Amino acid sequence: MSRPRPLSGFPEWLPADRIVEQAVVDTLRRTFELHGFAGVETRAVEPLEQLLAKGETDKEIYLLRRLQADADEPDPGLSGLGLHFDLTVPLARYVLENSARLAFPFRRYQIQKAWRGERPQEGRYREFTQADIDVIGDGALAFHHEVEVALVAAEAFAALPIPPVRIRVNNRKIAEGFYLGLGLADVTAVLRTVDKLDKVGPDEVERLLVDAVGAGREQARACLALAAVRGADAGVVDAVRALGVDHPLLAEGLAELAQLLDAAAEHAPGLLEADLSVARGLDYYTGTVYETHLVGHEDLGSICSGGRYDELARDGDRVYPGVGISVGVSRLVGGLVGRGLVATTRPVPSCVLVAVPDEPSRPDCDGVAAVLRRRGIPTEVAPSAAKYGRQIRHADRRGIPFVWFPAGERGGAEVKDIRTGDQVP
Amino acid sequence: MSRPRPLSGFPEWLPADRIVEQAVVDTLRRTFELHGFAGVETRAVEPLEQLLAKGETDKEIYLLRRLQADADEPDPGLSGLGLHFDLTVPLARYVLENSARLAFPFRRYQIQKAWRGERPQEGRYREFTQADIDVIGDGALAFHHEVEVALVAAEAFAALPIPPVRIRVNNRKIAEGFYLGLGLADVTAVLRTVDKLDKVGPDEVERLLVDAVGAGREQARACLALAAVRGADAGVVDAVRALGVDHPLLAEGLAELAQLLDAAAEHAPGLLEADLSVARGLDYYTGTVYETHLVGHEDLGSICSGGRYDELARDGDRVYPGVGISVGVSRLVGGLVGRGLVATTRPVPSCVLVAVPDEPSRPDCDGVAAVLRRRGIPTEVAPSAAKYGRQIRHADRRGIPFVWFPAGERGGAEVKDIRTGDQVP
Repeated sequence: MSRPRPLSGFPEWLPADRIVEQAVVDTLRRTFELHGFAGVETRAVEPLEQLLAKGETDKEIYLLRRLQADADEPDPGLSGLGLHFDLTVPLARYVLENSARLAFPFRRYQIQKAWRGERPQEGRYREFTQADIDVIGDGALAFHHEVEVALVAAEAFAALPIPPVRIRVNNRKIAEGFYLGLGLADVTAVLRTVDKLDKVGPDEVERLLVDAVGAGREQARACLALAAVRGADAGVVDAVRALGVDHPLLAEGLAELAQLLDAAAEHAPGLLEADLSVARGLDYYTGTVYETHLVGHEDLGSICSGGRYDELARDGDRVYPGVGISVGVSRLVGGLVGRGLVATTRPVPSCVLVAVPDEPSRPDCDGVAAVLRRRGIPTEVAPSAAKYGRQIRHADRRGIPFVWFPAGERGGAEVKDIRTGDQVP
Repeated sequence: MSRPRPLSGFPEWLPADRIVEQAVVDTLRRTFELHGFAGVETRAVEPLEQLLAKGETDKEIYLLRRLQADADEPDPGLSGLGLHFDLTVPLARYVLENSARLAFPFRRYQIQKAWRGERPQEGRYREFTQADIDVIGDGALAFHHEVEVALVAAEAFAALPIPPVRIRVNNRKIAEGFYLGLGLADVTAVLRTVDKLDKVGPDEVERLLVDAVGAGREQARACLALAAVRGADAGVVDAVRALGVDHPLLAEGLAELAQLLDAAAEHAPGLLEADLSVARGLDYYTGTVYETHLVGHEDLGSICSGGRYDELARDGDRVYPGVGISVGVSRLVGGLVGRGLVATTRPVPSCVLVAVPDEPSRPDCDGVAAVLRRRGIPTEVAPSAAKYGRQIRHADRRGIPFVWFPAGERGGAEVKDIRTGDQVP
């Protein structure tokens, strides 16, 4: 085998960077479990019709085919299986499949890989790890869970040694109620046009709203005025009210937003901000939506997004609403590592290398290592009984900070800190 | 979406059973890290030619195809990608790709899913989790690492609340040296025949060795006598010597086996046993081989196997020998859960449900929960301010052992243990 080359879009980390990813995953998991979310793993594959059920034909899906499948006798259980492109479709299926054995509201976290055949670029991968939490109700789901998932995400980010994050929120009810109150009935068309603000700017959005969606000039300007509202406190609600549009759904959305901002100001000050231009996902989410950026690294894209679905899943008359948020672990770690925002103190778990004076002493050295490990200290034994200088260089090359000499120059055991050179009994 | 049905061979656990799997994975990881193995994750896909490089055409491989691939313009980067069927092929590729950036001997653990299109049955899945450790040398790799990986695996199993395990070991050098010493030159043919012992019995193996491999009657009987040797101490070496065959490779293999048994007797008494009938993998491993069974559940198959490769990977003249062992996490957990060998005390992480007297009090309840979480106690807040009886039933249904009442009947906060019914301030 000659030297292989990386596959574009399939990131792999060297051990030091993998430590960063593992630390992110561990912190997320610890936070999720502290909040009573149960861990779930679903299989990597779903039937194709499930993957396409939400009409997500823009997602590039990888289909599976058995190498040794007989053309005349295709495996019926495997025709039309694809790799999941997110963890929400599998969750909806898992909830339906196990509904009789789950207690609702069902709280689960899920940290797994997903796959999309996207064109690779920074922050966009073909294989990536996501960390999701969702709360799923049976029939109904109280609004306070929309507050909860944002605060859990905020707490997880606060526990990570990363640049500050900003979670931007909006609420479908505000947009929909506002447009309806304005007299614009084709809410989806307005949403999709406003979603282009970042790309084409307000003048072009106004033109599109008038020419393509059929809004009046004043209606279009009101939509832009709504999208310009942002802030972290109740002033946001006042700003929307000042636009003079009235609709029950708008009032409901504003009340929810105010509740979310209040809770965030108390539990996660500075992390959450209402931004009524956030439109991503508003066409399928039904309440709060979330987007999260690393402050100063907004160009990386959202590292944690989600929202509320009134109908995550349905089984006949039984409807399961849900709210969830998904951390883009690969995008976050790729950004942290790629931009040098974090550094590990050592690339291996080992704290100590036990030096081996000669091969017959190896069992004694193993014994020393066992004692250290019983104290919780990751330890390895030198691979060969080379000269001590070479063993120290081996520790240095591997990034192990301490070398333990079972029999030092002064008789007893000694430990050398190879970063400072100090050696003590 | 109507109720979906499970896919055969793609196991998924309910939250309570997932806790078992997670505990197994956590224990393995902790043990591996204590021994200085660095965590690595590789992508799920490898080029097909890499997957087939070892001639493993008996492995059912899943190939990937993009749903939206244009037939006229197939994506050249994706033609011939398949899901990995183990973690050894990806490791070999990872080592070659990153050899300039790794310090050797490279010690890595890897806990990931793998996929095989096998016919599903107990202990055999199409998607499964493996936990591997390997030590990879650059050019050379000392024998003591063959002792090490077995002891690390033994230590990990000893740390798990599972039935006792038995690690059976053999050594390719013993078999090869013995056959060569007997004058049987086609070592692979003898190995493959002896490998059928379990299935067809000694009489048939003897017949096959004579009729198909061309051995003499005495040679065939000697091969069977070797395969009958087992034991946990140096008596094994004596038993082989008593068969009167002499060959330098045999002597080397016996010395290695003795060293392994000695170390195991000291560090993991009772866990390791030499069994010279173990032949699985002897055609590609070059030194020690390992197989592990749960005592009393041998029918589940090996839950941890591996061995030494003199040539795990090669880049021109540069050869990378390796030794590794792979825990079949899915098979182990499937056995533990399916046979009722373990039980979780609760199916959710939460220890405490904070009851909500009325919705306006929810922020106070959130505050109580935050304090408990800061003490490391997984806590959730009741989803609704229903009557306390209903909130207690909710905790019971979710398996949460304690309910915290922010304002109890006697004025202050009270905690109820819903398993005993005790309620205290």
